[in-house]
Amino acid sequence: YKIAVLAGDGIGPEVMFEAKKVLAAVSSKFNIKFNLSEFDVGGIAIDNHGHALPDATLKGCEAADAILFGSIGGPKWDSLPLEQRPERAALLALRGHFDLFSNLRPAKIYPGLEALSPLRADIAASGFDVLVIRELTSGIYFGKPKGLEGEGEEQYAFDTMRYSRREIRRIAISAFEAAMKRGKKVTSVDKANVLVCSRLWREVTEEVALDYPEVKLEHIYIDNATMQLLRYPNSFDVMLCSNLFGDIISDECAMITGSMGLLPSASINGSGFGLFEPAGGSAPDIAGQGIANPIAQILSLSMLLRFSLNETAAADAIDQAVLQTLADGILTGELLAKEQRHLA
Amino acid sequence: YKIAVLAGDGIGPEVMFEAKKVLAAVSSKFNIKFNLSEFDVGGIAIDNHGHALPDATLKGCEAADAILFGSIGGPKWDSLPLEQRPERAALLALRGHFDLFSNLRPAKIYPGLEALSPLRADIAASGFDVLVIRELTSGIYFGKPKGLEGEGEEQYAFDTMRYSRREIRRIAISAFEAAMKRGKKVTSVDKANVLVCSRLWREVTEEVALDYPEVKLEHIYIDNATMQLLRYPNSFDVMLCSNLFGDIISDECAMITGSMGLLPSASINGSGFGLFEPAGGSAPDIAGQGIANPIAQILSLSMLLRFSLNETAAADAIDQAVLQTLADGILTGELLAKEQRHLA
Ligand SMILES: CC(C)[C@H](C(=O)O)[C@@H](O)C(=O)O
Ligand SMILES: CC(C)[C@H](C(=O)O)[C@@H](O)C(=O)O
Repeated sequence: YKIAVLAGDGIGPEVMFEAKKVLAAVSSKFNIKFNLSEFDVGGIAIDNHGHALPDATLKGCEAADAILFGSIGGPKWDSLPLEQRPERAALLALRGHFDLFSNLRPAKIYPGLEALSPLRADIAASGFDVLVIRELTSGIYFGKPKGLEGEGEEQYAFDTMRYSRREIRRIAISAFEAAMKRGKKVTSVDKANVLVCSRLWREVTEEVALDYPEVKLEHIYIDNATMQLLRYPNSFDVMLCSNLFGDIISDECAMITGSMGLLPSASINGSGFGLFEPAGGSAPDIAGQGIANPIAQILSLSMLLRFSLNETAAADAIDQAVLQTLADGILTGELLAKEQRHLA
Repeated sequence: YKIAVLAGDGIGPEVMFEAKKVLAAVSSKFNIKFNLSEFDVGGIAIDNHGHALPDATLKGCEAADAILFGSIGGPKWDSLPLEQRPERAALLALRGHFDLFSNLRPAKIYPGLEALSPLRADIAASGFDVLVIRELTSGIYFGKPKGLEGEGEEQYAFDTMRYSRREIRRIAISAFEAAMKRGKKVTSVDKANVLVCSRLWREVTEEVALDYPEVKLEHIYIDNATMQLLRYPNSFDVMLCSNLFGDIISDECAMITGSMGLLPSASINGSGFGLFEPAGGSAPDIAGQGIANPIAQILSLSMLLRFSLNETAAADAIDQAVLQTLADGILTGELLAKEQRHLA
């Protein structure tokens, strides 16, 4: 398999270094050949090539079977014009270019790590294991028209939220397929009491549900969802969200675990090609200290093996090893520091 | 003063009953005359007059100095077409009709009630006292165009998020004015890395900030805000939000307190006229049992006295009495039940 490796900025390179060790172990244990090509992306690409997503990087990704992505951005590039900054010029561009419409963000509280959660002990102890499925290439992020018009105080800005039946259907199918392999429950997040997009979202989601009679479908308003997650986190299984609502809900879920350094994510298109990256950011504040947790990057690799390469046994082995490591109480400096702070 | 009293559905009438007792006490203690007129609104108005906001109710509100609102809606009216349901046909209509653009939603953890918060004990103990200022009459709620177009799988829905400089400026001024009377910090919530509306929002907010050199202004992305609220709730003072983001953030803040039954809200227009209502809903599940907490309704009355009638002494007296009651550990059945559940 050909894998494009884009380590990026901040803690990206150091956690990627650990993930590559895991890939080497998988390669020998399961006798799979991987052909890795490394490319600059994000801030480092701006520094070296003048653009956050250089042509060579894009070509390299096109030639690969999947992209293993680190993280990008940092204060050094924050004063650039918005369109040139790492997040937009590289991340949003890659999502759009490869039509990576299905974003999977699992978030769970690992047994033994309940104390990391910012939720009350009894609530955290009730368990939390959610898969957020976020639509990633449409909605208000990409909808046209978008712009500024008018003069003086009446000058106004506008953005368009937009969803077609086709776009809603394909992401809803992702959610129901995922639910079949998990708790068989889909909670669809919308604002159908205000948005026409949400009403179409509800309609199409209910159509898709007819093909999955075993899966329970619930609808919840985004405002209520942010509340119920805090009080009854264990009542959710798969959460199906549009682009903007998924951005919000997946981050709330990540924070509920209290351990962003453990959470992977996958962004996949219709042919199984995907970009796999930690859910957390480039964390420039702890970069270079050797304390960043590489598990999110390692689990992103596992998702890559599972979803883009269909190497289920290898992916299972990685997940198992991570679970075992956490169960053994082996934590990195970053998580240990957090835990001490919390228990203090 | 003329006050239009719209008790509505569910627990609305029973908590309004208690608020009217408080108003009577204020009237005699401060020697202020109040002229109350009661009107049907919401589900009860649908039942009695065929419309959630009957003409007589609207006329009554127009003739008043302020509206004291209970809560509306319930399962009985949930199967009506969306446009006729209580929330839209009455609440959104009133907001639009009176141009109630400035929505104030205070949320705090009261001393002694930390155990009600779903946050971890050490985090809840660090304190939480936030005022969410939400823009209430523009943004994606009211932006045009909004609709459905196309055929078959390419049929698409669209909504328009839209903000003018004027609309942003007036709500930003509300936030800075409020901050001057509190912790002198405004955190403006946006998604400026994706939305043109948010970029204009940032620009105008910074212009307004120049007139308030004592107030510290910070910008935060909505996804990050939902996270930081869980981990560092005490780092916020006034949160300035657009309509949709304020809907989400104010509900998250309400849940963080764990005591929705204690939270009032105010929706005010440019001339000080306003609608004052509890932040929670009509709670049909506990209606009629005499256990609903009337404090949110009583504090809504206090906001009415403070913001629409400028009766500061009367408002202060009510706030003081509520604080004292809570400090004395006097809780209603509803909150007691919650606390017992939590401490169990
Ligand atoms: C960087 C930003 C544009 C991005 C998003 O909003 O999608 C990020 O928050 C994410 O969730 O990956
Ligand atoms: C009922 C609904 C339309 C409303 C809103 O979204 O504004 C409610 O959630 C609120 O916050 O008052």
